[in-house]
Amino acid sequence: MIYLDNAATTFPKPNEVYKEVLNCMENYAANPGRSSHKLAIKAQSKIMETREAIKELFNIPDPFQITFTSNATESLNIGIKGILKSGDHVISTAIEHNSVLRPLNSLQKKGVQVTLLNVDKSGHISIEDLKRQIRANTKLIIINHASNVIGTVQPISTIGKIAKDTGILFMVDASQSAGTINIDVEESNIDVLAFPGHKGLFGPQGTGGLFIRDGVQVEPFKEGGTGSNSSDMEQPDFMPDKFESGTLNTPGIAGLCEGIKFIKKVGMKEICKHELLLTEYLLIELKKLNYVKIYGPTNLKDRCAVVSINIDGVDSSIVGYKLNEKGIAVRTGYHCAPLIHNIIGTNNKGTVRISPGYFNTFKDIETIVKSIMDIYKQ
Amino acid sequence: MIYLDNAATTFPKPNEVYKEVLNCMENYAANPGRSSHKLAIKAQSKIMETREAIKELFNIPDPFQITFTSNATESLNIGIKGILKSGDHVISTAIEHNSVLRPLNSLQKKGVQVTLLNVDKSGHISIEDLKRQIRANTKLIIINHASNVIGTVQPISTIGKIAKDTGILFMVDASQSAGTINIDVEESNIDVLAFPGHKGLFGPQGTGGLFIRDGVQVEPFKEGGTGSNSSDMEQPDFMPDKFESGTLNTPGIAGLCEGIKFIKKVGMKEICKHELLLTEYLLIELKKLNYVKIYGPTNLKDRCAVVSINIDGVDSSIVGYKLNEKGIAVRTGYHCAPLIHNIIGTNNKGTVRISPGYFNTFKDIETIVKSIMDIYKQ
Repeated sequence: MIYLDNAATTFPKPNEVYKEVLNCMENYAANPGRSSHKLAIKAQSKIMETREAIKELFNIPDPFQITFTSNATESLNIGIKGILKSGDHVISTAIEHNSVLRPLNSLQKKGVQVTLLNVDKSGHISIEDLKRQIRANTKLIIINHASNVIGTVQPISTIGKIAKDTGILFMVDASQSAGTINIDVEESNIDVLAFPGHKGLFGPQGTGGLFIRDGVQVEPFKEGGTGSNSSDMEQPDFMPDKFESGTLNTPGIAGLCEGIKFIKKVGMKEICKHELLLTEYLLIELKKLNYVKIYGPTNLKDRCAVVSINIDGVDSSIVGYKLNEKGIAVRTGYHCAPLIHNIIGTNNKGTVRISPGYFNTFKDIETIVKSIMDIYKQ
Repeated sequence: MIYLDNAATTFPKPNEVYKEVLNCMENYAANPGRSSHKLAIKAQSKIMETREAIKELFNIPDPFQITFTSNATESLNIGIKGILKSGDHVISTAIEHNSVLRPLNSLQKKGVQVTLLNVDKSGHISIEDLKRQIRANTKLIIINHASNVIGTVQPISTIGKIAKDTGILFMVDASQSAGTINIDVEESNIDVLAFPGHKGLFGPQGTGGLFIRDGVQVEPFKEGGTGSNSSDMEQPDFMPDKFESGTLNTPGIAGLCEGIKFIKKVGMKEICKHELLLTEYLLIELKKLNYVKIYGPTNLKDRCAVVSINIDGVDSSIVGYKLNEKGIAVRTGYHCAPLIHNIIGTNNKGTVRISPGYFNTFKDIETIVKSIMDIYKQ
């Protein structure tokens, strides 16, 4: 199978990831941070190694400001629901994923004021518009770094500076960017960073993370056993225990560690370059086909390796079905992002999303383009 | 290492579990329920197979009433925080884990009335006391099925009948029992069942589950993309999507499936019998040592394979340290259960917890008993 659904989860992962998950399960998958025997200490130190690797990757000041979660959705829920209270105002965008929009929609019913910035057809917000929407009670700006529908990359450093200058917390959803686009929480003034482990970071599914800057007040989400302050019924107020109740996904986190080490070994620039070269090639070839509509930015500088298209006269789900028959994996439909489809005009049809990854080849791109031509001709 | 810390997480797991996690990661770890290509469908069908296995294990009416979570703590948080509202009364016990006590403590500050039933020195609640504590506004009873500190097993069918007869929801924390003690949600009138995947069910860490009976109103916890109703900013109201936002831990759930199949193959009775025989042997041998204080029930009928002890004049953490030096893994301290230590008299010292599992041998028990004798003599 030619896998071009890396925006959903990267596949395959580097071999080192598989090996370490197995090694952990077989040799040291005790409960980290609970007991003090050798196996538990080994588990705990592997988790610490992963924290350090994440700290380095995103230039996070302190590894304990990183919380492990089960996916980016959990990270986003912790941040959004833990920061916003009735009467607060939050600015987000129409290009967000449902992992941001659904929590915001819920909070709106509880008295949180929500402004969703419009985006243009290429998916970009207007910085002027963002500035205009800031109110006295604006507490948080949440931005999708790279769109999972049309690949648009937002200028997070510019937005971060505005947030900092106006005393507003800045939260970034890095679901599609972590691991392929450089993120520096210091340089971009990011207060809260939510990221999955199983996409660009090459970890197994069941992993994700959340950076919360020291001093940012976030209510606990899951409360329970932390292996710390055990005789106290109050959730600990220190990081990361405040948000890490219950047994962590040790083998998953061990695999994630190797995924991040793989990025470091190959180089994030190299990974990004390869993915964008594949994307460029795909865009060039698709542009030659006048029956293919391409959505999103055409400038490679402002995009990641996520390309949404439609074929004239063929429903997106049929395209997906036929590509699957030809041994090609893509995703079709709305991609859990409801509002962007109003803007790009795909409200009742969705899109065919092609998302190359580091392990794809130019040959894979040739094959999908050829298949798209065949599907149109049939 | 002789691993006697199975109450924290079972170790090792059956080989089939390791194999399937690896097989899933290498061959079909696409995003389940999102795309419609072969890999995603294979991932989805493995998850469905796991749901069916859990349904059968606990006699759950419908597999879609099962939500996958990252651990029992998450399951408990979803249930507790999703059911209880200001003005409601909840009955729980002093033997609960912090994964119940901390959420309840939090809710108490938001207007939920909490009654914690006392337990006797063997860890049992009084059924008469439970009946007395029921009020007009009692909405929920939450019971720890088997104690992670002293191994006490509560009579859940008796409690479930009282809950049903009085129209109160019944929630069971099966963290220490799922997989080794038979649980039938129909027979015991359980409305909400929280269980870990990585303990008695032999799944990898990062897995857990939650059964919510059809008709029980529970607010969403994590909201986000579900692959369903994608064009809608409302969290879906149907199961399991209502509680399964974000990418699931596919390899973990695939491993869990094999763990449950292993239980079925060996037989839960056989597993339970082996663990209790080891426990019985341990108790018999420890009772011979007059400097060892054993906590919890002495009757095997009412206990699981969790034994807490202390050695006269030696701090529990020192015992743990010395056992570790001798190559034996146990847990020491408070075990994330604060209130039971008031009752068993270990408030300032905690206990040494020995928790045998299916893969332990009588030789392992002999070795730890011998080591305890050596530690006392030194």
